[in-house]
Amino acid sequence: MTKTHIDHIGIIVDDLEASIKMFSGLLGDGPSTTKEMPDMGLKIAEFETANITIELLQYTGSNDGFAKEIMGEKSGVNHISLRVEEVSEAISKIEAAGIETMAGFPRGGAHGQVAFFKPETTGNVLIEVCQPDSHSTE
Amino acid sequence: MTKTHIDHIGIIVDDLEASIKMFSGLLGDGPSTTKEMPDMGLKIAEFETANITIELLQYTGSNDGFAKEIMGEKSGVNHISLRVEEVSEAISKIEAAGIETMAGFPRGGAHGQVAFFKPETTGNVLIEVCQPDSHSTE
Repeated sequence: MTKTHIDHIGIIVDDLEASIKMFSGLLGDGPSTTKEMPDMGLKIAEFETANITIELLQYTGSNDGFAKEIMGEKSGVNHISLRVEEVSEAISKIEAAGIETMAGFPRGGAHGQVAFFKPETTGNVLIEVCQPDSHSTE
Repeated sequence: MTKTHIDHIGIIVDDLEASIKMFSGLLGDGPSTTKEMPDMGLKIAEFETANITIELLQYTGSNDGFAKEIMGEKSGVNHISLRVEEVSEAISKIEAAGIETMAGFPRGGAHGQVAFFKPETTGNVLIEVCQPDSHSTE
């Protein structure tokens, strides 16, 4: 059986520019991508480390109500995202284990089709699954 | 320049047995290691995914004061740990960037010599560096 790949670690930050500077120093390299998702109220920067993507997310203060409901408002390490082949199939398997999908998912996110699960059914661990649009090179 | 390897993602859980069961289902495989660190008041389970280690940590309620000061009491995704060659050298570089080391570090942890940094100097992102005892096979 192929082992699960953790696609990324999601981190909420209050000041994206300051956090980009800090992580660039810490990791020895700048972000691979910066982007905005105005319909989700998010500014995003991604860093590619040797083995995983670190995703920094800053709320823009506009249209970010849904994102805040999902991820909360507190800055810090927020969630882990499991890469899956097919998001609906993954959701079915996960729900069969008693974990509940949050309302409004699956939907398009920063990494293709994504879903988040209710923390009260995962021991308060915020977990996402994502089906990236294109195949990874790994 | 060699890219940084994220050694593990640290997750605080309230019920290690329940979380081991959940993650085993989610990842399709059981933990590679379970251990206790009684002097730190921690029970630990580690899962090896395709690309990163997931570390589940449960406070035992005894001798866990220091660990709770560092990681907080709240369950959820807690910290990221950067693998470094030499912990003291890594701390010097990180401090040169204005990030402050928490009192009491470096010290022996679950992954060799480790250090945590003050979240108020990292934009509230809890970051650890670790110098594993043995060389990684990667």
